[in-house]
Amino acid sequence: MLFFTQCFGAVLDLIHLRFQHYKAKRVFSAAGQLVCVVNPTHSLKYAPTRCAAAQTSTEQGILPPCHHHEAVHDPQLVPCTCPLFSCPWEGHLEVVVSHLRQTHRINILQGAEIVFLATDMHLPAPTDWIIMHSCLGHQFLLVLRKQEKYEGHPQFFATMMLIGTPTQADNFTYRLELNRNQRRLKWEATPRSILECVDSVISDGDCLVLNTSLAQLFSDNGSLAIGIAITTSKVHSSEAEI
Amino acid sequence: MLFFTQCFGAVLDLIHLRFQHYKAKRVFSAAGQLVCVVNPTHSLKYAPTRCAAAQTSTEQGILPPCHHHEAVHDPQLVPCTCPLFSCPWEGHLEVVVSHLRQTHRINILQGAEIVFLATDMHLPAPTDWIIMHSCLGHQFLLVLRKQEKYEGHPQFFATMMLIGTPTQADNFTYRLELNRNQRRLKWEATPRSILECVDSVISDGDCLVLNTSLAQLFSDNGSLAIGIAITTSKVHSSEAEI
Repeated sequence: MLFFTQCFGAVLDLIHLRFQHYKAKRVFSAAGQLVCVVNPTHSLKYAPTRCAAAQTSTEQGILPPCHHHEAVHDPQLVPCTCPLFSCPWEGHLEVVVSHLRQTHRINILQGAEIVFLATDMHLPAPTDWIIMHSCLGHQFLLVLRKQEKYEGHPQFFATMMLIGTPTQADNFTYRLELNRNQRRLKWEATPRSILECVDSVISDGDCLVLNTSLAQLFSDNGSLAIGIAITTSKVHSSEAEI
Repeated sequence: MLFFTQCFGAVLDLIHLRFQHYKAKRVFSAAGQLVCVVNPTHSLKYAPTRCAAAQTSTEQGILPPCHHHEAVHDPQLVPCTCPLFSCPWEGHLEVVVSHLRQTHRINILQGAEIVFLATDMHLPAPTDWIIMHSCLGHQFLLVLRKQEKYEGHPQFFATMMLIGTPTQADNFTYRLELNRNQRRLKWEATPRSILECVDSVISDGDCLVLNTSLAQLFSDNGSLAIGIAITTSKVHSSEAEI
């Protein structure tokens, strides 16, 4: 009986997933764009002091020792950079991706342009939606966070981090695009390195920021589709043109 | 003596204007783009109830009688739509432009693409920056407003209104673009009709919204340059592509 109940649950999940995927395909009918349905993860516990010293991160591929409850013995080790969890893991930068995949079950997608479909936007803050994106020989972490910077007024913040050093990050440009209801919003910037802290990027507001009302205008039946594209940066002449 | 003082003041103003213009040219070096320096106007008095009924505006070219202190006797007359002032003027839609120019000294610019350079972004909220833009046979009103939706946290809101009916407005798309410090933010939407109220567009957040920190990233020495482009809308297939 338990087996049949589980099977029924799995079939329901599959139907729900196909429905979300179909919705995304309907909105983003451009050929060749991979649509990834991303379910929310409630942050059971934020550790605000975890990355307090991240601003001083260096080019050596290490995060500063911001786990106050434990010392980082080996300067070559990186604490877990997943913004969702206060994870005690630490390891080399090269194995961060496998840690995020295996321990935190964060999906990784391939492709120059993908569509990130965040479901259940109505869930209360704080909530995160996270995927990894493999592109141009590097891995990126896309974080969409619902957070109340001003009490009672949740906002959505979206940013992209390179799983690499700040110098490597300077070689790329990422674009996030919302497109619905005859409105279009595009944000382009250089990704930050994962050695910097996603919390500080969001608290600085140096990312795509959406008020709840605008997020509702761009969402379809509780799901928000964000088009993502990553390119290599040419000479930074962007300021000379509009 | 008074004459010489006034002359000296005028020369100083001219130098300041040229300096602002030079700065804008430096940032927006694309040939053929007209740069318009727009100084802020402090709103001495907001009249929040003035357009409270504007949501019910019709296609007849009139604003609803939302001047509570006076009745609109002729249904063909439009109350002054300038968002800055509680102006008792009312007149036909066709003469709104000349009223805004002559009474409120709002500049009007020609050109498909212009750069709106708002100065003195540091001034406290509420503050507005306004110009009219003549393009494709119609006139548009661009409003940039600094306002505190959440006390102590001023934000910037930018929107474009057509000086015409909602049906006419549906034929256009406007784009606002910020581009600086290796970041780019683009907002595209259908302009609202001036028969709707700019206050309600801003309170709904259905416009380009900037937090103070993001506005600072995009501004140069206290001035924010916004690239503006208006096009005629094709078939609304924007949702099918990203």
